[in-house]
Amino acid sequence: MSTTVSPLAPKSYPDMPDIEGVQFATAAAGIKYKGRTDVLLATVPEGTAVAGVFTRSKCSSAPVDWCKDRVGGGKARALLVNSGNANAFTGKKGKAAVELSADIVSKALGCTDGEIFLASTGVIGEPLPAEKFADVVDTLKNGQGNANWLDAARAIMTTDTYPKVSTASAELDGATVLINGMAKGAGMIAPDMATMLSFIFTDAAIAPDVLQALLSGETGGSFNAVTVDSDTSTSDTVLLFATGTAAARGVSPVETLDDPRVEILRAALGDVMLDLAQQIVRDGEGARKFVEVRVEGAESDASAKKIALSIANSPLVKTAVAGEDANWGRVVMAVGKAGEPADRDRLAIWFGDVRVAVEGERDPDYSEEAASAVMKEQDIVIRVDLGLGAGQATVWTCDLTKEYVAINGDYRS
Amino acid sequence: MSTTVSPLAPKSYPDMPDIEGVQFATAAAGIKYKGRTDVLLATVPEGTAVAGVFTRSKCSSAPVDWCKDRVGGGKARALLVNSGNANAFTGKKGKAAVELSADIVSKALGCTDGEIFLASTGVIGEPLPAEKFADVVDTLKNGQGNANWLDAARAIMTTDTYPKVSTASAELDGATVLINGMAKGAGMIAPDMATMLSFIFTDAAIAPDVLQALLSGETGGSFNAVTVDSDTSTSDTVLLFATGTAAARGVSPVETLDDPRVEILRAALGDVMLDLAQQIVRDGEGARKFVEVRVEGAESDASAKKIALSIANSPLVKTAVAGEDANWGRVVMAVGKAGEPADRDRLAIWFGDVRVAVEGERDPDYSEEAASAVMKEQDIVIRVDLGLGAGQATVWTCDLTKEYVAINGDYRS
Repeated sequence: MSTTVSPLAPKSYPDMPDIEGVQFATAAAGIKYKGRTDVLLATVPEGTAVAGVFTRSKCSSAPVDWCKDRVGGGKARALLVNSGNANAFTGKKGKAAVELSADIVSKALGCTDGEIFLASTGVIGEPLPAEKFADVVDTLKNGQGNANWLDAARAIMTTDTYPKVSTASAELDGATVLINGMAKGAGMIAPDMATMLSFIFTDAAIAPDVLQALLSGETGGSFNAVTVDSDTSTSDTVLLFATGTAAARGVSPVETLDDPRVEILRAALGDVMLDLAQQIVRDGEGARKFVEVRVEGAESDASAKKIALSIANSPLVKTAVAGEDANWGRVVMAVGKAGEPADRDRLAIWFGDVRVAVEGERDPDYSEEAASAVMKEQDIVIRVDLGLGAGQATVWTCDLTKEYVAINGDYRS
Repeated sequence: MSTTVSPLAPKSYPDMPDIEGVQFATAAAGIKYKGRTDVLLATVPEGTAVAGVFTRSKCSSAPVDWCKDRVGGGKARALLVNSGNANAFTGKKGKAAVELSADIVSKALGCTDGEIFLASTGVIGEPLPAEKFADVVDTLKNGQGNANWLDAARAIMTTDTYPKVSTASAELDGATVLINGMAKGAGMIAPDMATMLSFIFTDAAIAPDVLQALLSGETGGSFNAVTVDSDTSTSDTVLLFATGTAAARGVSPVETLDDPRVEILRAALGDVMLDLAQQIVRDGEGARKFVEVRVEGAESDASAKKIALSIANSPLVKTAVAGEDANWGRVVMAVGKAGEPADRDRLAIWFGDVRVAVEGERDPDYSEEAASAVMKEQDIVIRVDLGLGAGQATVWTCDLTKEYVAINGDYRS
């Protein structure tokens, strides 16, 4: 956790309305950090549905394995998250630590292990001292409701420079339902998924399979469309909880995907997820510029996304952005290396509204001054038209600065 | 071209023996740089065979397209290389520039266009003022033999901090044949292939198809096994010329791949290519550490190579090396993100000779002191055993430093 907030941070935090039945408490268990909270216990009412998406890493962490094994059950009562230690690559000790964590929480709350969800973020390879949760579990249980959304988001931060929260609402059956979320993440951020944790809560009643379809469907355009450094974490976890507490206000359960209310929920959920994903990029380690990469005219959306990520992950593109250098040749390079269909002589590239290249060469009206002016902005759009088809994709990233190197050159010690 | 030589540079240059019939001249054409040579003309005797491997970029440069169209002919008389401008993404102007370049050289030398090979390296997207070659072609033609191997290697440098040459010999038919090579490259270096140019010459007589098979066969373990920044250039070119001048010393031509002398040549050629490839990594932009990544126990060699490159390209692994931080958790992360078969609980990791992790967790005998001592070395070996099969691969990379960001944050301007 840095004392200097990213210059790209949102200027203010949204007012986060309460979601009935969702309560938080935080504590300082002393896992790694001193003088700050490092554990979050969130409780949700009986009957809460849950869905999740997880890292595709072949070396996933013990808590990821725990959640993956249980999310199919579709029911949740609590979420325990710690920062400072990822409980990843901890072998048998890691498995024992998640079992002990769940045991401590389930006994305190009087529910089953299968309803406890766990997430850990921090250093990889160090055994997690889960017994420390026993010291704070009573505080966490008795303090439920004492922590607000920002407090909760702060307790799960690692190298983040600010807590990340977002909220949206939707009208269902004449009543308002809420979707609130929090996230953490700043480095080891790439699609599928990154050292990124996000926990989202809604008071709508949504059946687990519908909830899972909604979450999975909105991940591609949000959490899986951002990259800080192309490095994928062992620990990425997004959990979506639906308490159903809006039923008291006359909102009937959403049981099937063909329910017309699904699209209303999808739009609001997508807004929250995209907002949180972009906040993670805006807190990218060492980031000074926020970059939107739009690729259009590709042979397919999937092809466009591969090309967009090739641009967004290119160290040379990212250092050029850091240097405010309108170096569109590196964008050409990144298009070329993606391995996707591209015809050099149909390619056009824009920085902001300034077209810098067209038909495979520098724009005849190219103005270094105009292009450089775009690069001096804090938020930059790089747009590429491949001229081949209708495929398109947008991804978000940040620049690669000396500060990124400094932050990551001595993080563990 | 930097004034500070990479700390990883070889301590001395090898004595480069003459290869009969191979001659160089260099000139300062003023393409971009001031006060240094920026053009190399190499001439080879009539009957010289040629082979080439090129970037797989979908946006390859005009000189790459030129060479690809002609290398199948198998015959060469001259090679013209310029630094300062890559003639890449230059559209119709780029095609006209390569045609003019070849025309200038072929007229001066009295040979055909099809025997002239071209390479350009430098900025992408700027039209190449090929007419400047006309100003220096007489100097280059009349000065043939005035430049030695180091002079030649210097003329093709861009952000390189030192010229790269290598030599090897082989005994064929009781006589010695030579293989000399040069290379340039420091950034935008990744397999397949990078802003990397390499030109290799032998006096053995080798049929073009055998020459191509030899070159292609040795590329995977050398030029395609190094990465500086994962960025693949539009311009990568490796050309191998066989003059056949050793025939005067009784070396008969190598006409088929089943000639037993092929393996002798392969070993010597492989040595030169690996030496040049490693020299490129040792000149990686901002590099302070040379890193060998060995992956063994994978399901296949191809799988091992993907995992090795995932480690070698990871910004978090590379910044940890820069920070002399024995952060093996990031190696786990990079194994996990490769998407190749891996079983977390069978993984073992070494830094140098120090085993840091075994059976999916920290080594019971882990010593932070011992691991940190390895990280303080200039040359570091990271070894991973997946414990799954017999597949193995080795790749080479360098660390990611603030200097890399500085060099690439203002390269173009």
